[in-house]
Amino acid sequence: MKIICSKSNLLQGINTVSRAVSTHSTLTILEYILIEVSPDEIKLTANDMELGIETTVVGDIEENGRIALKAKIFSEIVRKLPDNNVTIETDEYNKAYITCEKAKFDISGKSGEDFPDLPNVEKNSFFILSQFTLRNIINQTIFSISDNDNNKMMTGEYLTVNNNKVRIASLDGHRISIRYSELKDNFNEEKKIVIPGKTLSDVSKIINGTVYDEVNIYITDNHILFEFDRTKVISRLIEGDYFNIDQMITDDYETRIEFNKIELLNCLDRATLLVKESDSKPIILNIEGSNLELSITSDIGSMREDIEVKKEGKDIRIGFNPKFLIDALKAIDDDEVSINFVNNKAPCFIKNENKDYIYIILPVNISE
Amino acid sequence: MKIICSKSNLLQGINTVSRAVSTHSTLTILEYILIEVSPDEIKLTANDMELGIETTVVGDIEENGRIALKAKIFSEIVRKLPDNNVTIETDEYNKAYITCEKAKFDISGKSGEDFPDLPNVEKNSFFILSQFTLRNIINQTIFSISDNDNNKMMTGEYLTVNNNKVRIASLDGHRISIRYSELKDNFNEEKKIVIPGKTLSDVSKIINGTVYDEVNIYITDNHILFEFDRTKVISRLIEGDYFNIDQMITDDYETRIEFNKIELLNCLDRATLLVKESDSKPIILNIEGSNLELSITSDIGSMREDIEVKKEGKDIRIGFNPKFLIDALKAIDDDEVSINFVNNKAPCFIKNENKDYIYIILPVNISE
Repeated sequence: MKIICSKSNLLQGINTVSRAVSTHSTLTILEYILIEVSPDEIKLTANDMELGIETTVVGDIEENGRIALKAKIFSEIVRKLPDNNVTIETDEYNKAYITCEKAKFDISGKSGEDFPDLPNVEKNSFFILSQFTLRNIINQTIFSISDNDNNKMMTGEYLTVNNNKVRIASLDGHRISIRYSELKDNFNEEKKIVIPGKTLSDVSKIINGTVYDEVNIYITDNHILFEFDRTKVISRLIEGDYFNIDQMITDDYETRIEFNKIELLNCLDRATLLVKESDSKPIILNIEGSNLELSITSDIGSMREDIEVKKEGKDIRIGFNPKFLIDALKAIDDDEVSINFVNNKAPCFIKNENKDYIYIILPVNISE
Repeated sequence: MKIICSKSNLLQGINTVSRAVSTHSTLTILEYILIEVSPDEIKLTANDMELGIETTVVGDIEENGRIALKAKIFSEIVRKLPDNNVTIETDEYNKAYITCEKAKFDISGKSGEDFPDLPNVEKNSFFILSQFTLRNIINQTIFSISDNDNNKMMTGEYLTVNNNKVRIASLDGHRISIRYSELKDNFNEEKKIVIPGKTLSDVSKIINGTVYDEVNIYITDNHILFEFDRTKVISRLIEGDYFNIDQMITDDYETRIEFNKIELLNCLDRATLLVKESDSKPIILNIEGSNLELSITSDIGSMREDIEVKKEGKDIRIGFNPKFLIDALKAIDDDEVSINFVNNKAPCFIKNENKDYIYIILPVNISE
């Protein structure tokens, strides 16, 4: 095998597939990147058995072949090479010679015979999202998945497609985050799947996130395939039925406030200073007339701050974990945000007129 | 006590003294910052018994007094306040009320009665360095102190003043770093002291580093005092005699090469990829004619690269820990650098014509 490609193209390819390199597997080959050179293309593949990524690299092909190189050292070497053409050549003993200007590296690889194939995803139908939209709806919901493996379902995100509308949701037992987006093109099928959180987080980092570039999304019974640019990301799905989130959503409210998001976020940010990781003191929102008083008291000290709000309905006094309010508000682009409350035992709803997001947060019990 | 000062002035003062706040002391008060308000000034002090820092903050004084506040929470609160005037008021129970715009914090402090006084340094004579020079000579030598407390002397830097010249040196058993600088003003005393590395590293971070601002340096038998801007840094000295470094310096050489620093640094940087933290493989410099071949071989693979050099004297083949060469070369501003070698068992000398630096590095034994 012999190829010549620019350092930047090669590095981009390596960075893309690296997200599917396993870091703690008993199967050594999963820590490798497979380079396959055929007459038409230079293909890089990584596969940790949950997630597989392949991408092609533009370059000159001088000799076909394949080799698997340990991802860590391969990517470190390429990263530190001069910004020029890189030649990779292999010999019959699976040794790779990497040359760039006057620098010559040789490292041992593996034949790649035992490198696991990516699952074959049947490409019957697909829907399209812009990379911009896909990245947004992931980043605006992924923070409320659970990182506790005890409930596998909560570590994924629930994706549904219906009537040309895509919805993505996550929940961790204390809160639910939901984002909606319209599909531009017609897609008449109905889909309900749970995608591993890690897959979505990786995809959101690999895509370039522009409005102009698109991602084709194929869904089968067990897999999801994201196809974009020169890259394919294939992931297993989480099996089973997701929680019934529709029954948790309501439009009713007794109190509704509208406020400046940044003002509240800054105030919450200051309030969290008084909360140590270990003890989660609630922040108390006391809404009276057009005044929202935030207060928090912990072993360290206490803090109080007033914010002016537009209020509709009853006065209310309700407590929350400040982190949950912060996470939701940070995921919202709007400058003016509104929250609906029912009572101080029921979840609050942060949502907007367009109905492109709903954030539901359970309150914390506070002594009266 | 009651003061009003801008958030930025207050925060700068806190950041300055914070470097002397203790993080792991059995004496709780050392984790506090002392605020002392007298009719003329607002003074902040921190003291970890090795290092003490005091600085004054510009602000309005409404009531004299003193209080000690826990450094961590005090600095976090001030950092997160809006960018406006901050009022700090205390009550008879040592509670501090910190107010800024609509945000109101209250935290418990201590009276500060048991806050240890900074040592009194007699200001008989002092010499002056620009903040720029002081920061440079520290940063360009501090990397070769030892972080191993077994040899206390090696954890400090050796400062000597003689004939209006200041010299600072550090060594760790494998290498020596020396910087020289001329004093602008006359200083006829002779000084030889060992300053704790941490003190110097803190001072280099607190000073602003401009050419125009100066630092007055006072030395007594047991202490050094750096006085600059609104700040005083007082540190204990390390007691005892430093190593005799003068006898290690020689101008003799058998081989001398001159090369482009960046080219060699990039090459060394790539070579270190093949070295794991645990096994320290040497990089081999093979100088033949005007060619310097660098090569390194480890369990991971091997690397070879040629660099053109100007050579004087014999050919030589010599091995080094690549990290030591990198540290020294990074500390040098010159684009063209030269190294003198005696033989492959003797230390090499990296120095320039001006004699403002000498870096001495012991070679690693390599099998022929």
